[in-house]
Amino acid sequence: MKGAVLYGPFDVRYGEREDPKIVDPTDVIVRLSASCVCGSDLWPYRGISPIKGPTPMGHEYCGVVEEVGKAVKTVKKGQFVVGSFFASDNSCPICQAGYQGRCVNAVPMGALGAQAPLLRVPLADGTLVGTRELPAAHMIPSFLAASDVLGTGWFAAHAAAVAPGKTVAVVGDGAVGLLGVLAAKQMGAERIVLMSRNAERQKLGREFGATDLVTERGDDGVARIKDMTKGLGAHSVIEAVGTQEAMMQAIRSTRPGGHIGFVGVSHGVEIPGLELFLGQVHLLGGPAPVRRFLPDLMDLIWKGEINPGRVFDLVLPLAQVAEGYKAMDERRAIKTLLTVD
Amino acid sequence: MKGAVLYGPFDVRYGEREDPKIVDPTDVIVRLSASCVCGSDLWPYRGISPIKGPTPMGHEYCGVVEEVGKAVKTVKKGQFVVGSFFASDNSCPICQAGYQGRCVNAVPMGALGAQAPLLRVPLADGTLVGTRELPAAHMIPSFLAASDVLGTGWFAAHAAAVAPGKTVAVVGDGAVGLLGVLAAKQMGAERIVLMSRNAERQKLGREFGATDLVTERGDDGVARIKDMTKGLGAHSVIEAVGTQEAMMQAIRSTRPGGHIGFVGVSHGVEIPGLELFLGQVHLLGGPAPVRRFLPDLMDLIWKGEINPGRVFDLVLPLAQVAEGYKAMDERRAIKTLLTVD
Repeated sequence: MKGAVLYGPFDVRYGEREDPKIVDPTDVIVRLSASCVCGSDLWPYRGISPIKGPTPMGHEYCGVVEEVGKAVKTVKKGQFVVGSFFASDNSCPICQAGYQGRCVNAVPMGALGAQAPLLRVPLADGTLVGTRELPAAHMIPSFLAASDVLGTGWFAAHAAAVAPGKTVAVVGDGAVGLLGVLAAKQMGAERIVLMSRNAERQKLGREFGATDLVTERGDDGVARIKDMTKGLGAHSVIEAVGTQEAMMQAIRSTRPGGHIGFVGVSHGVEIPGLELFLGQVHLLGGPAPVRRFLPDLMDLIWKGEINPGRVFDLVLPLAQVAEGYKAMDERRAIKTLLTVD
Repeated sequence: MKGAVLYGPFDVRYGEREDPKIVDPTDVIVRLSASCVCGSDLWPYRGISPIKGPTPMGHEYCGVVEEVGKAVKTVKKGQFVVGSFFASDNSCPICQAGYQGRCVNAVPMGALGAQAPLLRVPLADGTLVGTRELPAAHMIPSFLAASDVLGTGWFAAHAAAVAPGKTVAVVGDGAVGLLGVLAAKQMGAERIVLMSRNAERQKLGREFGATDLVTERGDDGVARIKDMTKGLGAHSVIEAVGTQEAMMQAIRSTRPGGHIGFVGVSHGVEIPGLELFLGQVHLLGGPAPVRRFLPDLMDLIWKGEINPGRVFDLVLPLAQVAEGYKAMDERRAIKTLLTVD
């Protein structure tokens, strides 16, 4: 088969890859309905996270089960499934506590390369959530979003303890930040402040439920959030970037006793201990345990109550994956969906 | 009056100080039953936190109300009271959310110098909690402990989400760490691991409820905690030191999804963002909102269910405050109680 392979900085190609095969009896092979490019794919694409050699790319997926390993019990051939960007057994104590991204047997799906027509999914029974019927084509983008960006935005809002009546600030207007807005809206937040200076993203943020926009960044952005909250800061802050500036903006925008959910993969971030101590904010982040939320999120999508697939503003065939990365790198696209024949 | 004054590194004296007076109508003057030396007093004592000139010391107190400002409504003259090391109005949105140490009108009691016979307490109605009767003399040390170290250990355990069935690790065997053990025991923890290599402190830790002792530090200490928890790490970790080593030991000892309560005042700590991200632990710290817990803690003390005053292993008259600091600095004493005539 052919799929996305990164050869070096800014050099991603539609290249030859081996067809995946069942390796462990708990594996399944999924024929993807679609795949996509993640903001986190841009770190290796830009050469910031170095690679060791040609690297298959992608970790977001949904599709139809094509082949089933001998030990797989619940997932069936022909079923439409969505899984997280970490395969997990969903039964270890860490999974049981709801942190499937840190399952003791976790497998990062990025290592398997989901920007491809076929994908091996380990620990299939623990990892995949199926639908009763095959979904309509127009729902595919939303189910695909559930695989990572929706689940990540949802986890961020959950970690930030979003609840009815609360004021939420969202640092980062990428797909995850925007879906953090959607999650905050679903969780009943009273006021949702999206920090963005990009007209397209502001528009989608409004559509997802943002009540206010802040274009200032850094300490000026913090000052705006303070102004909007009688000097106290937001109850809940979502950090969906991963830089030092974004993290400090999040910490300083949160009121004492408030909560931060940080889901931007940290790059060079150092949190000053004394400022965190004096700030007295709850901090929780990390790779989102998408599997915890997946059944509920898929149910909301099935019922048409949420439409997270709206974050895909560029649709390209997998063969044009290079353009898909380029458009995101240049911020011409929020998120690229890759169609797979 | 005479009280503790710090003149420079390692130079604390029983010196002349002005008698406190009512300044604001919400103030009261308390005649102290006892005061004490805090681990955090050692930072300026050692010259690590510089002072600008002769500085009155102390922020822990309990005693009998001697004079009442005109706007004080609930606190009565002659009443025995305990207050936190931060005065708070207990009515602002931050207080209402339970973070009285960050009250919008907070006054750090350290600035008023509680190692003295008399103390002005601002925002008396919000700050002080009284008993119905005067307590017996043997209870004074425990009520005094409630003013800071007990409340701080309690907050740490609460922030670390200690609950029945959980394994708790405590980094730091000072008074706060030891009272973190006591708090964890009261909150029903199944296993309480105290990290200590000091025989006296280990003994008191056992008395307070520690089920296990770990003498290793740093990554060796982490490895011991992992060994004791099937490789997963503790559910809850209390960090009661404030150094880089202690913070990293706490983060690495916590299982994914677990909770850290950090109450050691951070000194030079920098938390690596990526490690916190990948560790996926809840982090909450800061100056303990003692006022939130004070009514319950005073009730437990009144009933004799807890005896946190056991942390005072050195009792000196206030006139010998210099020796009180010295003994703690040299770790000959866990905590010094200062009697006030």
